[in-house]
Order: sequence, then structure tokens, then C-alpha cells
Amino acid sequence: MSAEDVMQRLERCLSRLPGVGRRSGARMAAKLARDPDGILRQLVSVLDEVRNQVCVCSSCGSLTSEEENPCPLCSSALRDGTVLCVVEDPSDIVSIEKSGEYKGRYHALMGKLSPMRGEGPDDLRIQDLLDRLDREPFREIILALNTDAESDATCSYLASLLAKREILVTRIAFGLPVGSGIMYADELTLSRAIAGRQAL
Amino acid sequence: MSAEDVMQRLERCLSRLPGVGRRSGARMAAKLARDPDGILRQLVSVLDEVRNQVCVCSSCGSLTSEEENPCPLCSSALRDGTVLCVVEDPSDIVSIEKSGEYKGRYHALMGKLSPMRGEGPDDLRIQDLLDRLDREPFREIILALNTDAESDATCSYLASLLAKREILVTRIAFGLPVGSGIMYADELTLSRAIAGRQAL
Repeated sequence: MSAEDVMQRLERCLSRLPGVGRRSGARMAAKLARDPDGILRQLVSVLDEVRNQVCVCSSCGSLTSEEENPCPLCSSALRDGTVLCVVEDPSDIVSIEKSGEYKGRYHALMGKLSPMRGEGPDDLRIQDLLDRLDREPFREIILALNTDAESDATCSYLASLLAKREILVTRIAFGLPVGSGIMYADELTLSRAIAGRQAL
Repeated sequence: MSAEDVMQRLERCLSRLPGVGRRSGARMAAKLARDPDGILRQLVSVLDEVRNQVCVCSSCGSLTSEEENPCPLCSSALRDGTVLCVVEDPSDIVSIEKSGEYKGRYHALMGKLSPMRGEGPDDLRIQDLLDRLDREPFREIILALNTDAESDATCSYLASLLAKREILVTRIAFGLPVGSGIMYADELTLSRAIAGRQAL
């Protein structure tokens, strides 16, 4: 395989990462190839560490280590085991933890209902959520989803699904700027949004 | 080392790539960690290929394979060995090749004079350039540098350095939008800029 082919493979691979386009992928690939003993070697080594040491928590879906599965957030006795915060993406858990407002458990759906991208209920961790509700003593479910139309639809779907159960379902307050995502909110906004949650 | 520490190392490593910030590095790292048998494995494998098969051409500085060093652009007998196109970055060579206007040799400086970033003549491949002029029968040097102030200064520096030699020094025409870079120019603009080059 020629150097050009190898570089094109690297560019295509990098372009599959979020936020990386064709042009930025090419720039990143060139930087890596021109410093094989520096940043390239370092990236390979840390990717190996991630592969060997990081895994997805079997309970909430966030990233943890093999030795700590379920993760500390799911197993800590210091956290409130009667409240469950449902998020779209595991990275949202990190953002909410930073706000310091919330001390319960988490559950990441790994996405939202999206007819446009062909993602239905079976593509999300909704069955896992129902199984957890059977197993764990939750009294309240806080839906901490984003504020776009697909997230709204996902909230409505979950609320109707959970209406049969004797459980309080709330959604974090619209302190978030509408149209934006949890990932981009500052800690104060997130903290207020959690404090001002409303029953559905 | 905890999963969090490993992820932070990956984020920092990715943030060293061009165009990647703290937030986008975190998103890329999360995507990689959540798909260890998919995109992460693929990236590690292609990075290994790059390390084993791609190297920097000892003559022009662009990327090539170990078996083809000097690269085809430098060794091809079909190209004009009397004209040398000097660029800042090896990726500019790819852009110029796409324009199809130029059939000579190339030389990448690997940057430009930048007092702000502490980069002087010794940080660029200027001595390599002078050595090539002694060794190869160039009659014309085309400076295909960008159009910002630092690139202008680099052109002036090279022009004064080459003035002692019996060689024509030209610079590609300002068909480029001023303040922009070669990487972002379309092929037609680049092609006209090369055709309309002016003697310095």
C-alpha cells in the first residue's frame, strides 16, 4: 500500500470522529505522520491504555475501569439510590456531576429517538432502564435530556411509558437555552435547571 | 491509573492535534472509548501502518514511503528539474499538484519566519534549500508561500538570501485572497496564481 493510500485511510478514520471533517482530518493526519516518534507514538500508547483499562459501566453506561464495574456513581452508598437521572449521553453525566446539585444515580440512554436517523426505542437503553426500575428502589426519575425537538419527543415517550408505574417523573427546568445541549451549558445554568425541575 | 485519568490523557493527546480544542478532544475521546472494537481498534491499526510505512521525503519534505525516498515528485524524470517550488507546509504540495499547473520540483520549508513563535531561519529547512541549489540544476525558484505578514517576511528573507546566486526568484501571483492560506484556495485560483507569478 502506498504512503498516499495509508494517509487517506488515516484521514477517513479520523473523519469518523465527532467534529472532524475532511480538511481537519487531513491536517491531523499530516501532523501525526510527520512526528512518528512524538505525538503518533503517544497517541497509539494512550489508545492502547484506553482499550485495556476503560469500559462502559454495565449499569449507567458511563465510562469506568474493568475493576470498578458498576462505576463508583452506581455503587457508592453515599449517593441517593431512590432518584435516577436519565441523560442522552454519558458525557452529560460528567457535566451534571460538575454542577454539584445532584447526588442520585444515573442512566444514559445512548442517544434519543430520531426518526431522521432511523433511531427508535430499541436503539436506546430503554429496556435496561425498565429493568433497573424493577430491580432498584427508585421513587423519582429526572429526565435530563436536551431541549431540541427529538429530545422533547423522547421525554414524552418515556413519560407515557413510565405513567403506568408508581414513580414520579420530572424533567429538568428549561433554564437551558432552548436549542442548545447539556454539554455546552455552564455549571450554574445546569445547577438551576436541576433545582427547578417540574413534574410531568 | 483510573479510567478518568486515562481518558484525560487521551483528551490531552488529541488536543495537541491541529484544530482540536478541549471540548472537541473530549468528544472524540468519548467516542473512541465507547467503541473499543470498532473505531478505536481501526485507528490504532492505521496509526501503526503510518508509523511503519510513511516517512518524510529527505529531499522535498513531503510524506512518502520508505521504499520511495526521495518521493516520486523528486525522482520522476518526467518533471522539470530546473524549477523549484518552495512552500511552507508539505500539505501545500498536495494542493498545488491538484491545480495541475506546475510540473517542477518542490521544497517544503516546514513553517515560516515567526518572531512571535520564536521561529527563526534555523527552524526552517533553509540550509537544505541552499544545499539543493548547489547540487541540483535549478534555474528558477518559485516562492509559493501564503499571503500573511510572516509569509511576506519569509519571502523577502529568501529573496535577499538568493540574490547573490544566478537564479531567477519569483513569487506566485496574488490571486490568493489576501490573509488566506494555500490550503483553502480552490484549484482554479491556485492555477492562475502560479501562471501569473512575478519576478522579485
